[in-house]
Amino acid sequence: MAEGERPGEFELIARYFRPLASDPGAFDLTDDVALVEARPGEELVLKVDTLAEGVHFFPEDLPEGVAAKALRVNLSDLAGKGAEPRGYLLALSLRADWTEAWVAGFVRGLASDQKTYGLSLLGGDTTRAAGGTTVSVTAVGGVPKGRLVRRAGARPGDVVFVSGTIGDAALGLRVRRSEFDQRVPGAEHLLRRYVLPEPRVALAPVLRQHASAALDVSDGLLGDFAHICRESGVTGTVEVALVPLSPPAQRLVESQPDALRSVLTGGDDYEILATVPEASAHAFERDAARAGVRVSRIGRVTAGSGPPIAVDKSGNPLRFPWLSYDHFQTGREK
Amino acid sequence: MAEGERPGEFELIARYFRPLASDPGAFDLTDDVALVEARPGEELVLKVDTLAEGVHFFPEDLPEGVAAKALRVNLSDLAGKGAEPRGYLLALSLRADWTEAWVAGFVRGLASDQKTYGLSLLGGDTTRAAGGTTVSVTAVGGVPKGRLVRRAGARPGDVVFVSGTIGDAALGLRVRRSEFDQRVPGAEHLLRRYVLPEPRVALAPVLRQHASAALDVSDGLLGDFAHICRESGVTGTVEVALVPLSPPAQRLVESQPDALRSVLTGGDDYEILATVPEASAHAFERDAARAGVRVSRIGRVTAGSGPPIAVDKSGNPLRFPWLSYDHFQTGREK
Repeated sequence: MAEGERPGEFELIARYFRPLASDPGAFDLTDDVALVEARPGEELVLKVDTLAEGVHFFPEDLPEGVAAKALRVNLSDLAGKGAEPRGYLLALSLRADWTEAWVAGFVRGLASDQKTYGLSLLGGDTTRAAGGTTVSVTAVGGVPKGRLVRRAGARPGDVVFVSGTIGDAALGLRVRRSEFDQRVPGAEHLLRRYVLPEPRVALAPVLRQHASAALDVSDGLLGDFAHICRESGVTGTVEVALVPLSPPAQRLVESQPDALRSVLTGGDDYEILATVPEASAHAFERDAARAGVRVSRIGRVTAGSGPPIAVDKSGNPLRFPWLSYDHFQTGREK
Repeated sequence: MAEGERPGEFELIARYFRPLASDPGAFDLTDDVALVEARPGEELVLKVDTLAEGVHFFPEDLPEGVAAKALRVNLSDLAGKGAEPRGYLLALSLRADWTEAWVAGFVRGLASDQKTYGLSLLGGDTTRAAGGTTVSVTAVGGVPKGRLVRRAGARPGDVVFVSGTIGDAALGLRVRRSEFDQRVPGAEHLLRRYVLPEPRVALAPVLRQHASAALDVSDGLLGDFAHICRESGVTGTVEVALVPLSPPAQRLVESQPDALRSVLTGGDDYEILATVPEASAHAFERDAARAGVRVSRIGRVTAGSGPPIAVDKSGNPLRFPWLSYDHFQTGREK
């Protein structure tokens, strides 16, 4: 489509983005800024995350999915901190040959997730990019004052929990890269888990109630647990046999020698890793189940320092050359 | 420099970005989110703006200046709304062949402006970009509840003011593009005004006190005044002879037939356009002067609708094919 036929910035805003801006503080995107009033006793929680074409998504990915992923990785961060999402700002830099159809699909993806998670677009900026499209979302959430769940806070003896299943996304990426047979049973599930995170928003109040520390697993299970250990001044153990796997992930771990490494260090899980004092562990499991989220005990926080270790059924430590995937360098894991 | 020799994401954060994160709500960038507590009686003001390499800045531009511009365009938006800046989130997507020296310069630019404007880095995300470097800043400001200065609010009879001088940046860009002789007296001043905006932060409380509507001039004087007119349901007149020009801009307007068009529609001024009720106009001028900002009366708000008109000394309307520069399309003005 010739450039002249595409809508300009103001038309894009009016036609596509304005309908997303339902919050009164967005002023229908007719002013220069967004206004956010904290509710009584609330602190605001902000998080920015960027998806770059060619790095975090593929040019051929559906724009609906790119939009959903851009929102959800941020919602996952808020959830891991016990914060409830309120809205977001969007900085969209479009590649030179962007099409109106791509923007329309992208906006459909935003609209659908706004409904799912009760969000409003608050403001944004649309520009051209000299290279690939870049999507940067600043999520705005709220948390009762003093109740943010930090990385620091884990204590020796705390139980380590994760939500959902671990490793699906990292294995899905490897299926997509044809490192595993694409016809492996359940490959669809793994691919979907890579493409579309499901942020554990429902777990936020349960974390506020019970967790001593928490975060969402994006760098890799062991690497993210290491973040908690470092900030809390502790270390810990993960029992690999307790790490919850989906049936297709289980099959890959049993059949492919290095699939376990991807499960434990691959990242992009967008599940919650939480440490919970022993005395609250049962209540945490119960309240998580009531919130509709399955959580599994996978290990312990222990006294000491250094990164946590993963142990097999016999208690023998497993060694990996790195603890998490480095999204920053080109495909290098660290 | 080979990729392996450059710092990874975590090292970049620790070495360069952590020292910028002085606000306690930034948690030294060791957690997943930033926490912002509104002060009593305050609402938070958010604004995101992106600078893309090859679109908003040149690959050879000094990284210090790119950093300063990325911050200042957002501070200018806050100032135009009567809001005081508190901090910002940074989403930085680095081109594949980024260098540590570039990042170091970029961080020096941020540090210097943080000092100038009393800001803290609150959080951020550093990723790779498949194309050029992209810098997206989400500015966080505060405004007393109910006192945000809107685009809507201008009334027939209000006086139209601008701060500083208009047109320097647009003319500076044309000097840079060799559309004008680079040896024109004062070319340095014009270029500097293009490269480095000076947000009128000091004007924020004066706007809250006196302005019926305001914004910062980024799209172009006439185009931005048109924004105010549309949102306020009014129209207006700008007396071209009253538009304040710097000496080099004055010289270009006198010598180059289409320089006036750039002054009135070129944008990137980052000055404030405000409408002020006649009864408050003197007080506005006085309080602006006390805040160290020169403001000039340039026109009137009038009853009616449609874009404002620019008139010459005899009151004859000047016509332009567009009212503002379209940053979105490739160099196309609209």
